[in-house]
Amino acid sequence: MTDSWATFGTDLHVELRGSGLRSGLMDALREAVRTGRLTPGTRLPSSRSLAVDLGIARNTVADAYAELVAEGWLTALQGSGTRVARRAAPRKPQAGVVRARPPHRRPTYSLHAGTPDLASFPRAEWLKAARRALTAAPHEAFGYGDSRGRIELRTVLADYLARARGVYADPERIVICSGFVHGLMLMGKVLRQRRVREVAVESYGLDVHWNLLTEAGLRTPALPFDGLGSQTGELAALRAVGAVLMTPAHQFPMGVPLHPDRRAAAVDWARGSGGLILEDDYDGEFRYDRQPVGALQGLDPERVVYMGTASKSLAPGLRLAWMVLPEELVGEVIEAKGSVDWVSSALDQLTLAEFIASGAYDRHVRGMRLRYRRRRDQLVRVLAERAPDIRVSGIAAGLHAVLELPPGTEGSVIQAAAWQGLAVEGVSRFRHKDAPTGRDALVVGYATPADSGWAGALDALCRALP
Amino acid sequence: MTDSWATFGTDLHVELRGSGLRSGLMDALREAVRTGRLTPGTRLPSSRSLAVDLGIARNTVADAYAELVAEGWLTALQGSGTRVARRAAPRKPQAGVVRARPPHRRPTYSLHAGTPDLASFPRAEWLKAARRALTAAPHEAFGYGDSRGRIELRTVLADYLARARGVYADPERIVICSGFVHGLMLMGKVLRQRRVREVAVESYGLDVHWNLLTEAGLRTPALPFDGLGSQTGELAALRAVGAVLMTPAHQFPMGVPLHPDRRAAAVDWARGSGGLILEDDYDGEFRYDRQPVGALQGLDPERVVYMGTASKSLAPGLRLAWMVLPEELVGEVIEAKGSVDWVSSALDQLTLAEFIASGAYDRHVRGMRLRYRRRRDQLVRVLAERAPDIRVSGIAAGLHAVLELPPGTEGSVIQAAAWQGLAVEGVSRFRHKDAPTGRDALVVGYATPADSGWAGALDALCRALP
Repeated sequence: MTDSWATFGTDLHVELRGSGLRSGLMDALREAVRTGRLTPGTRLPSSRSLAVDLGIARNTVADAYAELVAEGWLTALQGSGTRVARRAAPRKPQAGVVRARPPHRRPTYSLHAGTPDLASFPRAEWLKAARRALTAAPHEAFGYGDSRGRIELRTVLADYLARARGVYADPERIVICSGFVHGLMLMGKVLRQRRVREVAVESYGLDVHWNLLTEAGLRTPALPFDGLGSQTGELAALRAVGAVLMTPAHQFPMGVPLHPDRRAAAVDWARGSGGLILEDDYDGEFRYDRQPVGALQGLDPERVVYMGTASKSLAPGLRLAWMVLPEELVGEVIEAKGSVDWVSSALDQLTLAEFIASGAYDRHVRGMRLRYRRRRDQLVRVLAERAPDIRVSGIAAGLHAVLELPPGTEGSVIQAAAWQGLAVEGVSRFRHKDAPTGRDALVVGYATPADSGWAGALDALCRALP
Repeated sequence: MTDSWATFGTDLHVELRGSGLRSGLMDALREAVRTGRLTPGTRLPSSRSLAVDLGIARNTVADAYAELVAEGWLTALQGSGTRVARRAAPRKPQAGVVRARPPHRRPTYSLHAGTPDLASFPRAEWLKAARRALTAAPHEAFGYGDSRGRIELRTVLADYLARARGVYADPERIVICSGFVHGLMLMGKVLRQRRVREVAVESYGLDVHWNLLTEAGLRTPALPFDGLGSQTGELAALRAVGAVLMTPAHQFPMGVPLHPDRRAAAVDWARGSGGLILEDDYDGEFRYDRQPVGALQGLDPERVVYMGTASKSLAPGLRLAWMVLPEELVGEVIEAKGSVDWVSSALDQLTLAEFIASGAYDRHVRGMRLRYRRRRDQLVRVLAERAPDIRVSGIAAGLHAVLELPPGTEGSVIQAAAWQGLAVEGVSRFRHKDAPTGRDALVVGYATPADSGWAGALDALCRALP
């Protein structure tokens, strides 16, 4: 193929053949369209550009274009340039290519936990920030960057996290990553290199996280759990444990904040044993009541790895998260991060820095907090009316609630919800294999639907409940 | 710390104490500034917002703000809100935090290969595309995405690669990654899982790439190299080799295109042995002369993994690259990619899709091609005048040239360049340990300097040459 194609027209693989230049160009273009190399709608270079590239007169190209337009191969519209005509031979459809996710009927509503209301992404404000950030960026920002992430973002985050989450932060100990899982993978690598064999986890959480630690060669025993949160007092008995992964501000998915005594016990353990606490502060921005649930990291910045994300406060599509590291870990995490390929887009990092510095982030979080609180209140009110026997918990903060179900009904309620077109998950999906079987419950992500789908989702939920 | 801080003022860790609400708030704010929790320049919430959060009268907050402004703790500027005053207690400087890259004296000029002219990043056009892309994006674009990358970008890339690089592409077999290294890491994982033990590489290339394969558990024997490129005929003799990593369009860094016979031999080997060719098409867009150097992938899309990137054509800071996979590999690569955390920013992906679809990408590449060609011509002309004994090669394409040096002078020329304030690398830096010692040479990345630094870099280079 390569040998038979000339690259005349540097962006356009066409071969000049035949006697006349014009007819040669026309033949080559027709052939390119016929074989699907040039697909319908593709814009051709301007006649001037192509003429320069081919080293022929502009008129020759312009004439060839004009004839092909006349023949119906190309179209020429004012302001839109010359394009391959829509009805020109389309690419043959391909059969049998593996699809990542087989298409399946999507439910009408989803109350899966873990996603914010995507319809509320502040597009206009984000674009404003992007414009200011890109205009102000130094040239080097477009190059291969510092593997910790842009200094502009780390500086702004240090201030923000100190102010909003009580985190002891310094730009030098912040590392930007492309999501919580990325950060956890880095920590898994670092812990393994430190010869840690076990990382304690909570009795409830995400198997994706546990599996990631397992893949890094770490065992993941679960801490017992009760109404005050994870029993961190048990850490001392787990002799092979070198770190513990937790969601202290708002246990995921059970929703309780870790009791102050349990916080103290975790920090005491870390200090006494030289262990580390990995603090997953996934939705720390969203607190609706006045409990003082600052980040655990403030208690001991040298023993806690604080991990935050823009996935809940803004959108997962940004792929931006951050770690605030104990000083002694900074070098090891950078080493684990390795290549610049794990750095997030510099443009998005600069935009987020500007977005936070301008106050737009605070405004957005404040606005979303009001929306989510309203939804939470509606959820509680509607349940009180339509399903008064259901106990709701975990609602002081975050984007989801736990609805306790009668024993043995979890599976059937989820099935009933599916019949109502509603996707919702049960608490058993989040239970660690070490944990004793607990109560049946639903984990309801009330932030997930767009406003337009919220009432319908709530109604479907109530219909499915016993 | 947590227990002593109340979270009154949801974004602002202040503790109300003392008798009066106003004086309590003032004390808390003073304390927050004094201890560095609120740093100079930080913008405070509006009095209305804070009052709502604290459940107190707006006037109380407004009065407290006003008094603190009067005392010099805060500043209030029209349009900029209330902020912590610049002269308020600064955060204590921290000593001893590990720095990722120790500061060192930067050379005045760099002719390192591998970076495009960052000053030419099309900021305004990119912002236009971002605006269109964000305005048109469906809500789900902001969520956790398809691990292959956004379909909009894969669709546009399929057309572009077919048209500009002769690649047989289909959106279903394209996977977006965050750089060539990311793609190579995925391929290393897939090959290892297929029980491949060795990946042949070229005698010249980047040790970062070789090391990455080694880390994946693969040995990397080097193919012999001559004026026609890598001797792919030798592949048949390497029985443990299951894949070969190559830069067929423009060998990096030697600059020769792989000879047609060698291309054919590589494809024959892959077909006969079931092996794979990993085609690193890092600067395929930049060809200045008329040799037909289309992508090798067109010869056999089922045996070649095509890998392209925006790092040379636009900017490395975008962290966007793409793989076009043989059909049978798609599932395995998606599996290896695993978590959504390895997906690039959805916003940048959508913007690039729009940038390409609108024709801006072609215009940019065309413009850069003219600039780089002009630089190449200047380099050749200046060398002919000032260092007529130096042979220049590898200049038909790409962003760098190879300058042959008298035997034994490579190290001293690089040192002499450093004295001129010029950073430049020798070819030995890119030589595989299996490869025989070759000629002394410099690898000159003529795209790297901004226009303002180009003449100076060229002059420094000439001064350093023997």
